[in-house]
Amino acid sequence: MSETKMVSLDEMDEQLIQKAEAEGVETMWDRKKAMKAPCGFGEKGVCCRICAMGPCRVSPVEGKGAQRGICGATADTIVARNLARMIAAGTSAHSDHARDIAHVMHMASRDGNYTIKDERKLLSLAEEWEVNTEGRDIYDVAHEVAEIALNEFGKPFGTLKFLERAPEPRKKIWRELDIEPRAIDREIATIMHSTHMGCTSDAESLLKIGMRTALADGWGGSMIGTVFSDILFGTPVPRETEANLGVLEEKQVNIILHGHEPSLSEMIVMAAQDPQIIKLAEEVGAEGINLAGMCCTGNEVTMRHGVKIAGNFFQQELAVLTGVIEAVIVDVQCIFPSLTPITDCYHTKFITTSPKAKITGATHIEFNEEKALESAKSIVREAIENFKNRKKEKVFIPQTKNQATLGYSVEAIIKQLDRVVNSNIDPQGTVKPLADVIKAGVLRGAAGIVGCNNPKVKHDYSHIEIMKKLIANDVIVVTTGCAAQAAAKAGLTSKDAAKLAGKGLQAVCELVDIPPVLHMGSCVDISRILTLVGETAKHMGVDNCDLPVVGVAPEWMSEKAVAIANYVIASGIDVFLGVEPPVMGSAAVVDMLTNKLEEMTGAKFFIDTDPHKLSAMMLDRIEEKRAKLEARLGKEIEYGITRAEEEEEGVKELA
Amino acid sequence: MSETKMVSLDEMDEQLIQKAEAEGVETMWDRKKAMKAPCGFGEKGVCCRICAMGPCRVSPVEGKGAQRGICGATADTIVARNLARMIAAGTSAHSDHARDIAHVMHMASRDGNYTIKDERKLLSLAEEWEVNTEGRDIYDVAHEVAEIALNEFGKPFGTLKFLERAPEPRKKIWRELDIEPRAIDREIATIMHSTHMGCTSDAESLLKIGMRTALADGWGGSMIGTVFSDILFGTPVPRETEANLGVLEEKQVNIILHGHEPSLSEMIVMAAQDPQIIKLAEEVGAEGINLAGMCCTGNEVTMRHGVKIAGNFFQQELAVLTGVIEAVIVDVQCIFPSLTPITDCYHTKFITTSPKAKITGATHIEFNEEKALESAKSIVREAIENFKNRKKEKVFIPQTKNQATLGYSVEAIIKQLDRVVNSNIDPQGTVKPLADVIKAGVLRGAAGIVGCNNPKVKHDYSHIEIMKKLIANDVIVVTTGCAAQAAAKAGLTSKDAAKLAGKGLQAVCELVDIPPVLHMGSCVDISRILTLVGETAKHMGVDNCDLPVVGVAPEWMSEKAVAIANYVIASGIDVFLGVEPPVMGSAAVVDMLTNKLEEMTGAKFFIDTDPHKLSAMMLDRIEEKRAKLEARLGKEIEYGITRAEEEEEGVKELA
Repeated sequence: MSETKMVSLDEMDEQLIQKAEAEGVETMWDRKKAMKAPCGFGEKGVCCRICAMGPCRVSPVEGKGAQRGICGATADTIVARNLARMIAAGTSAHSDHARDIAHVMHMASRDGNYTIKDERKLLSLAEEWEVNTEGRDIYDVAHEVAEIALNEFGKPFGTLKFLERAPEPRKKIWRELDIEPRAIDREIATIMHSTHMGCTSDAESLLKIGMRTALADGWGGSMIGTVFSDILFGTPVPRETEANLGVLEEKQVNIILHGHEPSLSEMIVMAAQDPQIIKLAEEVGAEGINLAGMCCTGNEVTMRHGVKIAGNFFQQELAVLTGVIEAVIVDVQCIFPSLTPITDCYHTKFITTSPKAKITGATHIEFNEEKALESAKSIVREAIENFKNRKKEKVFIPQTKNQATLGYSVEAIIKQLDRVVNSNIDPQGTVKPLADVIKAGVLRGAAGIVGCNNPKVKHDYSHIEIMKKLIANDVIVVTTGCAAQAAAKAGLTSKDAAKLAGKGLQAVCELVDIPPVLHMGSCVDISRILTLVGETAKHMGVDNCDLPVVGVAPEWMSEKAVAIANYVIASGIDVFLGVEPPVMGSAAVVDMLTNKLEEMTGAKFFIDTDPHKLSAMMLDRIEEKRAKLEARLGKEIEYGITRAEEEEEGVKELA
Repeated sequence: MSETKMVSLDEMDEQLIQKAEAEGVETMWDRKKAMKAPCGFGEKGVCCRICAMGPCRVSPVEGKGAQRGICGATADTIVARNLARMIAAGTSAHSDHARDIAHVMHMASRDGNYTIKDERKLLSLAEEWEVNTEGRDIYDVAHEVAEIALNEFGKPFGTLKFLERAPEPRKKIWRELDIEPRAIDREIATIMHSTHMGCTSDAESLLKIGMRTALADGWGGSMIGTVFSDILFGTPVPRETEANLGVLEEKQVNIILHGHEPSLSEMIVMAAQDPQIIKLAEEVGAEGINLAGMCCTGNEVTMRHGVKIAGNFFQQELAVLTGVIEAVIVDVQCIFPSLTPITDCYHTKFITTSPKAKITGATHIEFNEEKALESAKSIVREAIENFKNRKKEKVFIPQTKNQATLGYSVEAIIKQLDRVVNSNIDPQGTVKPLADVIKAGVLRGAAGIVGCNNPKVKHDYSHIEIMKKLIANDVIVVTTGCAAQAAAKAGLTSKDAAKLAGKGLQAVCELVDIPPVLHMGSCVDISRILTLVGETAKHMGVDNCDLPVVGVAPEWMSEKAVAIANYVIASGIDVFLGVEPPVMGSAAVVDMLTNKLEEMTGAKFFIDTDPHKLSAMMLDRIEEKRAKLEARLGKEIEYGITRAEEEEEGVKELA
């Protein structure tokens, strides 16, 4: 089985799934098949299990079947409550992640495992939060800043500090809608309370408190997660790597880093570079240690260290099927519990490390931040010692992989943009060049493509189709999470991919020296996208919702994605979903999401399971926003020209 | 229809439901019928809607049908996650309630609407929390104490302050199990995170973090809710009232206070006593204003003001059907959204007041704590002005009601117990007399009977059957919530009910001058029961789990009940459930709940839908605990006598 050949992405999936079948190993596809038809009530969101009088399932069709639950809850209420709870759960995931990072910063010390890597970012945050820095040890400052952050989760008064970062008109909308989040965890508690039996039944009210909670994710948990990770582990800069299962090395100890938080994976990266650990690997006959990332832990370490990307969400089982993984090391979120039975079929050790994600049958080695590096080393040692147990006859590494350039933090993007700044005229270090090419129409707009994989969509198909369509139409793509990994695997985060872009974007890519699809990190790093959009809007003197910018989740599956979608909407950016959310059982909720929300927030949802239709809708919407923006900024821009002419003009300007 | 006659409780339900049918009004019973069979997957807890790859429903039967969700989650995982989320939601409800009360205390002022009514309790709490009180204005102290409480929801370090109130062996168990709750809302966020797709799959781990979150309810939100309400509105003392729909007055303006928080209802009570408001009522031709409570708001105001009890959860629709309700005023929790269509069929105004519980079609008059009394008056005025719209032909008040003596805070109980203290020998103001009669076997034990109504059980039937059985067997009953209202309606909270008690309990009731069933308040006041049990255990030098004490939820339906049940278990007190929780799809989880939990916590669940079997199990368990306790305290007690002799002995001792 160890013969290798170049296969396409789909072929690769297929080959490994066939291998699983041959070896009698169950995969998600077997389970999907066994599940038969999903429950129609659940799918449409009209199943209520919120109290034990039920469960109640009401008819999604008006006038036909049970119209109300026992308490009198309508389909509108039930759908909106279920949606709100998905937001609460998603927000919790990012809240808890960020809290951990803030705690890590609170214990950072000059001679400890966790140090401050980006002092500039820390000092700038200290200034933003009015923490005195003069003459103080940087670690004192760090601890005070960390404590302020930790209080963002539960402070009894006021609203979230990072809300201040938004454009003024956006802040006004939040104030007027009364959706400024207070403490992050308080919003979660309030939404769980409001959706409790006998509390809020009004769907609009539920959507509003849903948005408030979601904002506590985007401008709270996620933003803290990103900023504090950058301070602790370094703000990403562009770097090269490779992506897909072809990065696995037959002659090395392969360790998959899977999950979400960087505090463990950073230490694993350090541990794997330790000479003694490397020596141990050699002693067991391996040619080295090959770390490979998966899901957002993978994104965190590839952004900061160029650690190779083994794959995304749907490849967690496939990776094990290669037979060359000594250990899958996980922390939290998006980890299949099936990794226990599937690793049991191979020599692979499945190691859980977080008290928040214990998985039956896994080897649990609790990660102790106080002794971080030591913990990490003992985990890596487990993997190394497992190398000898590999079964040669079960080895098969698909040789598919692609080059990727990634590490595009906002700072990194601005630095690239500086390449086209005429420093005699304009200041460096701003988003002006980006604003200019958007205004000029060289770039028609920008899309943030994010999210997961979902068995309702062919693996990565919608991600890639949409990205290709958008870049071909001069829409620059920024991406995070599993979408970013899909892009990396497909070669779209390579600078070479500029050839797939339209003339305008291609010119921008060449001049600025970037790929047309910018990998901006993990799911919490969608906060980077919020920052970039917000800075651009501020630069142009408009609100986020005035920009030709869209958010897209082509293959989403997790509750985090629901929270994200809602903070993106509440931040004024349209969201395009390629998987139907469980709301279709309420015409009223669907109307709010896809229509009325625009009146409140300037943005709304677009839902279509066909990626081609969805991209067409995006391009239309981008042009619609452009037309309004141009009318608004008309005199200022003075481009009374056609789109083609605009592009010409823009390209000339850039050059 | 306005003829009245004495009817039994069931007949009364029946009569009003027939009235509804005659008038073409839909009630919960119509909706229950329309719902047909509930979903078996949902009922057994094996339906997973935690991510959008599904919904997945796995087979509750091993080896038959889909055994795992798409991600690999087993029935055990799915059941445990769903259960954990119910705990999170229930804890949120009490957390949010308590936070509001703490905020009210933070704004209390000598000349404001909210003042400090129980200075002694405040000062004692200040001492407990090490707040300086010397020479300080009581309001300064109140504000500092309130701020400390507000930080209990989100403090970044440490564990909950009230945990210190538990007996030492209990605290040790919490420490060893690692289930000491940190901040209240943090636990909610953590549990929502841990149950997110791809986090904890291990059922035991889920139950443990479930207990930790539940403890943040019992020893956090609920205890803060009770203590702070007492400080602000007065610690309840015994008082007389009446209960059931017969308390409604045909010639008065009837206002139903429904929901949970006392901050609004206290103000309504004040507003209804205002001479100008009373005059307004007279002006519209009413003979006065009749406030009547329902659910826990009702319990709060009856405990502190003797406001009559209109009924419990299942009577919210029935009350409207009487045709004499001018307004149903609600805050949060357990409010049927069907109150909108049902009040539309009568002249009744349905007024929502909380931003956390907006109900479609209701008149929303947002309660503003800053202008509390003013808000309350305008709400009461709405009701008064509606008196003229009453439709005489639709009036029917069932004449059922019962006398009740209630107001049994822990302090009130101890004061009653002082009646039998020989002050030459023993100190007053302790639980010693209670401990003594339990040790002696005069009382075989105590039961806390709490919780809701559920259409799976005949209205109040299980509550009453169990209470009668227990008191007849010399088990004293303490009760809160809808169970307490059931007891009050059935006359069991009347001192007369002592005649239904066994010889030992009867003697205690007479000597101490209490009913055999003690109404201790609202659902958050289960914290009073925790305190009482804890103090008794401490007095006897044992742990809660060593006492012959049981917790019972015969007709539970809400997620709050699930949180409560779990903190009661984690506090070492067995829990008896009369409605199956949605866990029966996992044999492993059922085994943990009904068996293995005992090893961890000293307590476990008993589940039986037959109230008679359930009471028999309680009595057995009480005797089992007694036997162990007697063996343990044997030498100390020196009662080597039979149960009958014990009683004799005890009664003599008391007399």
